[in-house]
Amino acid sequence: MSWNTFGRVFRFTTWGESHGPALGVVVDGCPPGIELCEQHIQPFLDARKPGKNRFTTQRREADEVRILSGVFEGRTTGTPISLMIENTDQRSKDYSEVAKAYRPGHADYTYDAKYGFRDYRGGGRSSARETAARVAAGAIARLVIPEVTITGWAEAIGEHPIDYSRFDAGQIRENPFFCPDAQAAAHWESVIDETRKAGSSLGASVACEATGVPAGWGAPVYAKLDSELAAAMVSINAVKGVEIGDGFAAARLSGEGNADPMRPGEDGPEFSANHAGGIAGGISTGQPVVTRVAFKPTSSILTPVETITSSGEATEIRTKGRHDPCVGIRGVPVVEAMMALVLADQKLLHRAQCG
Amino acid sequence: MSWNTFGRVFRFTTWGESHGPALGVVVDGCPPGIELCEQHIQPFLDARKPGKNRFTTQRREADEVRILSGVFEGRTTGTPISLMIENTDQRSKDYSEVAKAYRPGHADYTYDAKYGFRDYRGGGRSSARETAARVAAGAIARLVIPEVTITGWAEAIGEHPIDYSRFDAGQIRENPFFCPDAQAAAHWESVIDETRKAGSSLGASVACEATGVPAGWGAPVYAKLDSELAAAMVSINAVKGVEIGDGFAAARLSGEGNADPMRPGEDGPEFSANHAGGIAGGISTGQPVVTRVAFKPTSSILTPVETITSSGEATEIRTKGRHDPCVGIRGVPVVEAMMALVLADQKLLHRAQCG
Amino acid sequence: MSWNTFGRVFRFTTWGESHGPALGVVVDGCPPGIELCEQHIQPFLDARKPGKNRFTTQRREADEVRILSGVFEGRTTGTPISLMIENTDQRSKDYSEVAKAYRPGHADYTYDAKYGFRDYRGGGRSSARETAARVAAGAIARLVIPEVTITGWAEAIGEHPIDYSRFDAGQIRENPFFCPDAQAAAHWESVIDETRKAGSSLGASVACEATGVPAGWGAPVYAKLDSELAAAMVSINAVKGVEIGDGFAAARLSGEGNADPMRPGEDGPEFSANHAGGIAGGISTGQPVVTRVAFKPTSSILTPVETITSSGEATEIRTKGRHDPCVGIRGVPVVEAMMALVLADQKLLHRAQCG
Amino acid sequence: MSWNTFGRVFRFTTWGESHGPALGVVVDGCPPGIELCEQHIQPFLDARKPGKNRFTTQRREADEVRILSGVFEGRTTGTPISLMIENTDQRSKDYSEVAKAYRPGHADYTYDAKYGFRDYRGGGRSSARETAARVAAGAIARLVIPEVTITGWAEAIGEHPIDYSRFDAGQIRENPFFCPDAQAAAHWESVIDETRKAGSSLGASVACEATGVPAGWGAPVYAKLDSELAAAMVSINAVKGVEIGDGFAAARLSGEGNADPMRPGEDGPEFSANHAGGIAGGISTGQPVVTRVAFKPTSSILTPVETITSSGEATEIRTKGRHDPCVGIRGVPVVEAMMALVLADQKLLHRAQCG
Repeated sequence: MSWNTFGRVFRFTTWGESHGPALGVVVDGCPPGIELCEQHIQPFLDARKPGKNRFTTQRREADEVRILSGVFEGRTTGTPISLMIENTDQRSKDYSEVAKAYRPGHADYTYDAKYGFRDYRGGGRSSARETAARVAAGAIARLVIPEVTITGWAEAIGEHPIDYSRFDAGQIRENPFFCPDAQAAAHWESVIDETRKAGSSLGASVACEATGVPAGWGAPVYAKLDSELAAAMVSINAVKGVEIGDGFAAARLSGEGNADPMRPGEDGPEFSANHAGGIAGGISTGQPVVTRVAFKPTSSILTPVETITSSGEATEIRTKGRHDPCVGIRGVPVVEAMMALVLADQKLLHRAQCG
Repeated sequence: MSWNTFGRVFRFTTWGESHGPALGVVVDGCPPGIELCEQHIQPFLDARKPGKNRFTTQRREADEVRILSGVFEGRTTGTPISLMIENTDQRSKDYSEVAKAYRPGHADYTYDAKYGFRDYRGGGRSSARETAARVAAGAIARLVIPEVTITGWAEAIGEHPIDYSRFDAGQIRENPFFCPDAQAAAHWESVIDETRKAGSSLGASVACEATGVPAGWGAPVYAKLDSELAAAMVSINAVKGVEIGDGFAAARLSGEGNADPMRPGEDGPEFSANHAGGIAGGISTGQPVVTRVAFKPTSSILTPVETITSSGEATEIRTKGRHDPCVGIRGVPVVEAMMALVLADQKLLHRAQCG
Repeated sequence: MSWNTFGRVFRFTTWGESHGPALGVVVDGCPPGIELCEQHIQPFLDARKPGKNRFTTQRREADEVRILSGVFEGRTTGTPISLMIENTDQRSKDYSEVAKAYRPGHADYTYDAKYGFRDYRGGGRSSARETAARVAAGAIARLVIPEVTITGWAEAIGEHPIDYSRFDAGQIRENPFFCPDAQAAAHWESVIDETRKAGSSLGASVACEATGVPAGWGAPVYAKLDSELAAAMVSINAVKGVEIGDGFAAARLSGEGNADPMRPGEDGPEFSANHAGGIAGGISTGQPVVTRVAFKPTSSILTPVETITSSGEATEIRTKGRHDPCVGIRGVPVVEAMMALVLADQKLLHRAQCG
Repeated sequence: MSWNTFGRVFRFTTWGESHGPALGVVVDGCPPGIELCEQHIQPFLDARKPGKNRFTTQRREADEVRILSGVFEGRTTGTPISLMIENTDQRSKDYSEVAKAYRPGHADYTYDAKYGFRDYRGGGRSSARETAARVAAGAIARLVIPEVTITGWAEAIGEHPIDYSRFDAGQIRENPFFCPDAQAAAHWESVIDETRKAGSSLGASVACEATGVPAGWGAPVYAKLDSELAAAMVSINAVKGVEIGDGFAAARLSGEGNADPMRPGEDGPEFSANHAGGIAGGISTGQPVVTRVAFKPTSSILTPVETITSSGEATEIRTKGRHDPCVGIRGVPVVEAMMALVLADQKLLHRAQCG
């Protein structure tokens, strides 16, 4: 069945389709007394917003969030927080062809197979527009974990990785790509321009780090911090893989190469490496929590692809509508939001059991 | 808090420590009327069992499962199925040193940080012995999805991958490594022998494929089939990454290179590629569901590693106890079990909503 | 923590305060393909609506529902259905006194004790206005169980019960009290008029019956049909008790007096009594499911009651605002809605496990 | 589907049938560091144990509990606590007739209707033996809420209520009926003797009070403290009704008669009445939490009752096996256990959200 809620005690439920009147999220379980107004949320939505430059889809959405409940006199009351974002730039006429034929790689065929029919306008519920609701919820989650700082960035588009020796966190918000390497960012500009002009698309790899997470968050065995992060990240549209710490590279190492030795530190142990990505046995170690996420290239391309119609006949489809040449880029604020949402939930879970 | 239950409607709860009297699992929500006795479960436990050869830990466990409830006259009744496996070869004396110092990479420090103290014998609850309970539950899950065939295999240990041109599913059960490439298996024998003699360890990459999954399983948005698989896989001890279909390779592709074109087939569409790993929009496409899982090398090695004691003083530790030189190998039956458990749950969820 | 979701697989999450801009509900897990538009929901909201006559609170709300997602071309898509109802007649000035002193019997003190502060306008989240969202969700639930007919009625206000020998289901919608006994309804008119003029209030007992429920719905042991009904009913504002079938009367009977003998019938067994209220062992028997619910008198009365201020000083309070002299009456549509919501959930749960 | 787990963050899962080898419970989410051994649990099981005197079923069970996990060096570790109780006095031969015909009022017919077949030995999963597992879990819950004292008692059997003017809590454990009125207890002895000899049975009403619950526990809206209590109580075998505070009596009162006025007290407000049973708006007020539970008479009686066979033919059945003449009596320790389990869960939930 449908399952549009995420979280154990800090939980959120998203709703809405690409071309419906609005989309939104209900955040339940938020601690009371936290200062919250629309201005705490809007900057994160703006970071994700489409239509800001030529490198993203040309759909223009204000993505203006409205708080409908759960806040009184500027503070959270402990009751559910309902957020709504109106859709303003849906153009249903663009999507007539999609009604008839399945776009390979999209959820067109699978939604029909599951539900018997589908809202074909802009991908309906399977559209990445749903992630706006997550980003809004994530902004609230951040307020629940003020001790934590979350930073996400793109580390590669297609076959063009950044050079980590040039990593500069200050650069991330200085370019449209969330790229921490100014030189790579400049290069990506031309790569994406070409991709866009060719009507093609590119995959991307996004990394995210959370510092300030104390040791002890995580709920073994089936809600381990890394397990929850994995679920959170793979629930994002177009994500095909996730790594914690060294990830697949760790699979090629020996135990010696993968060790994270500890020394006494001022405030708990100091670690001389972080292959583990800040998580051992599903519980945070106090080191930065590090994850890496693979975004596939969007399947919306101008090259015709063989497909079938809803009635099962052979045809071809090429996607002429508005779309992102590299969806992974706008995935950065979404990855950050999911990191915040998982950590907020785990903080409250930890408090429930361990006081 | 602790969260030892997995699943939405086909749910299981595991319990037990490495050195307690027993471990077990309660499977709830299993459909009634399914033929079930211990013999349906035991072969899967035997495949995972330690101590069978020189390539795994020398702990010898019969791993004999006993059904305590939920079955009457050889069939499931629809009530909870309780399974118990007694621990028979725990040797607490081996673990005295671990009581005092934290083994880096293990959950020693994090359990202490979370819970204030820990069962230090053999890793307590964080031991991979917990996975025996999952494998037992997974055997029941397989009976719920008789239409599906699940096959897992090791595709690399350390830097020694198999050669996919020699892939032979028939080989997987013919060697102690779940290796589908007979030549690689022969090579791995010496690699692991060396690793074991050196008191070192190796990571591994495990793949798993489920065929026969019909189109339409998966519960968007936050219980997508791939999201659930990711959570399931990363909840396994020592797992640091998971991929669906092409995974991180897809992040380096263009939309054209990643396309899975469809043609009319006899029984639904035929796909000419499966970059997506059988899942689009979180719902199965009818193609094989494909996942890949990264196991880190176990942190139990003979080389001394810098660490701290429970009271925060500097020390060194080397792990002399029994352990697997390559935990990933015995991970294969566990990965298969988690695949079965996720699919059984999604099948029932689909039936709940879509009849 | 806050927990504003109800249901296992057919789940709904309500949000909104008495004096916020709107309130609403997200229904998740609804089967696809069901015809749904606002007109399916509005009549149930209208039945519950305040301000329709002199016997209820004089707050006038249009209670107009708007579907924001989950429906396409007039049918449910299987994705979350978001419903919103705007508040139009909140008058915050009426509630200034409540900000300072706790109304005994209301949630004023307990919300402060729990959350540290509260939205004091009209009871905030603890207002019975939240039940509008349930009624809206219940209207959708009814569409999921077309085989079931649900009928609720008031069976007593204060010490004025109906006479069951005059029971006429056709009367229930013919008076403002959901009273199936025309003679009692006429009497209640004067009783409530007096109560209202005296600034007093009355409790009520509400009964509800669901016919057409097939044998086999219910999820032992901790989601038994009766257990879920009890939770559902007691979650309604002002409810202090619930009975299944004969309820407390059964506690005074002998086994012979309480027996529900069975005979062979055309379509399953025929029962010659229904002391059990249609549920045995937590599972429906195929007989009508019968429940009875006790509503306390609202604590909003003109007689001054001793209380304390937020800062702990002694004071007195009398409630001058708009309120229902007998909240139980308007509870009838809410009880019906909760019955529908529980049954829809159990139907889908049954289908998940038993196909 | 089957749903054998109760609780939100302090959760327990029971398993086992009346005539299986054992029954048990897994308690998950228990805080770490709590002293726990079998001796903390056994006295509660002994209080509920059958076969102790002539007033209960003559099935003799040691009901000896064994802790299999989650405890190390005498303290809870924060990992799941598995408890097992072996069945020792099941006599399957007694139940041959039940295999063929449905006992009216029992779950025989409904289990068959739901699951297609059933474990007919002693009621299988629907047997009140399941409540032993709850009582064991409840003993652990009590350790989580040391600030709370829970006292249950029988207040009526059949039409024989206690006289509250003779209420003496010290009497409750002094007679086999959990009766706080010594005079009533003496009377009940002969009433139950007669009932037993006549092969009849009696209903009962059980009350339970929890003192020491601080103001602020409860999770609005759908996990209100009273809503959770109602679900917990009605999930007990044979329970047909539940009241909070004055319950149905409140429905007959006016607002003045039902008021619970507050005055400043030393440690929060003092209340001059407790009609509300210690809960307002679903949250505890700091007063005693009071509930009342109706147990029906067991349907196992010697008088033949009309029924049908599994194949739908008319027959009669009289129950000759061992059973309780008044199941409500042994319900007292179960009601207490459920009260403890709900309160422990709500305490941890409150801590999660409100710190």
